[in-house]
Amino acid sequence: MTTPSSLESLIEALRCLPGVGPKSAQRMAYHLMQHDREGAQRLAGALQLALTALRHCQRCNTFSEAEICSRCQSSKRDPALLCVVETPVDMNMLEQTHAYAGLYYVLMGRVSPLDGVGPAELRLERLLARACDGVVREVIIATNYTNEGEATAHYLGEMLRSRGVSVSRIARGVPVGGELEYVDAGTLAQALRERRPLAA
Amino acid sequence: MTTPSSLESLIEALRCLPGVGPKSAQRMAYHLMQHDREGAQRLAGALQLALTALRHCQRCNTFSEAEICSRCQSSKRDPALLCVVETPVDMNMLEQTHAYAGLYYVLMGRVSPLDGVGPAELRLERLLARACDGVVREVIIATNYTNEGEATAHYLGEMLRSRGVSVSRIARGVPVGGELEYVDAGTLAQALRERRPLAA
Repeated sequence: MTTPSSLESLIEALRCLPGVGPKSAQRMAYHLMQHDREGAQRLAGALQLALTALRHCQRCNTFSEAEICSRCQSSKRDPALLCVVETPVDMNMLEQTHAYAGLYYVLMGRVSPLDGVGPAELRLERLLARACDGVVREVIIATNYTNEGEATAHYLGEMLRSRGVSVSRIARGVPVGGELEYVDAGTLAQALRERRPLAA
Repeated sequence: MTTPSSLESLIEALRCLPGVGPKSAQRMAYHLMQHDREGAQRLAGALQLALTALRHCQRCNTFSEAEICSRCQSSKRDPALLCVVETPVDMNMLEQTHAYAGLYYVLMGRVSPLDGVGPAELRLERLLARACDGVVREVIIATNYTNEGEATAHYLGEMLRSRGVSVSRIARGVPVGGELEYVDAGTLAQALRERRPLAA
């Protein structure tokens, strides 16, 4: 007497999306079935295609349709620099700065013991092999400055240094355009500690 | 050099979901591809199944896999009462009260000129045919007490009354358990205007 089973299944299936609870899932299902069947059809197709076509680049681990992604294949990038980021989005953010011309390694996550993600789950041995290929001179760790990101950076630093790889970390400090009045104390303390000689 | 096209398409396709902008769509796509490929597979299947199986009940217009839904087929409901609601969710809410044993008609929307939804888009002629089948004695209009819901109720009332159908509207007033101190002035004014003789 209640909701048809195919509608129930759709509502249930929509809950696999992050941030979608029972109420939103219901609203989404009704919306798709009533107002956007074409969109639903397109979504089903896009999911299927992505599941079939997408894999991880064998060199940088980001999502790619090819075995080696176009960025890793490019001859315009400096192969001696390897920047480690948590996610493909972080990589895109760095690309948008136009300030980096080296290569990347995407962790696809972070060390987070509370979520059951340790070095093994991140398959860090692949990063190790990548960083020790004899071409990479410096690994720049660009994980977030969150607790998990910091823990990941620390762990990676230890691991890479023990193999004799030169490791750096992106700078922390007052944001460009930032006013001291509105910067949090922790950031300001770090900016003091990590002060640099004033450029002449 | 950027996002693979199948991933782009997935992000784009996810935006058909209500309330999902570019940032959430990206987060959803990455989450599915990295952490929940099984969920993505299930979602693709559920969409496909719902698109194939779901249609509208020929009598009450709600989502149904059968030509006539089980509620409309039930012999336990009073066919002389027809309650008009905006959405299947509203119908479920009324069902949960256990206070109504008649049948329903689901508009699947509301009159909303700003969104380009008029009587024609709602196909109100189907409701008219349903209400004038000779069995229905009373139509209870249970659209929302929003501007659009009220406009819809007004329009339906005129339309049905002109065909000689008896029409009522669900009551408006102070909520059960409500304290006058916290009820808005509009509701309170209506509760005064629509006062009823005190039951002995």
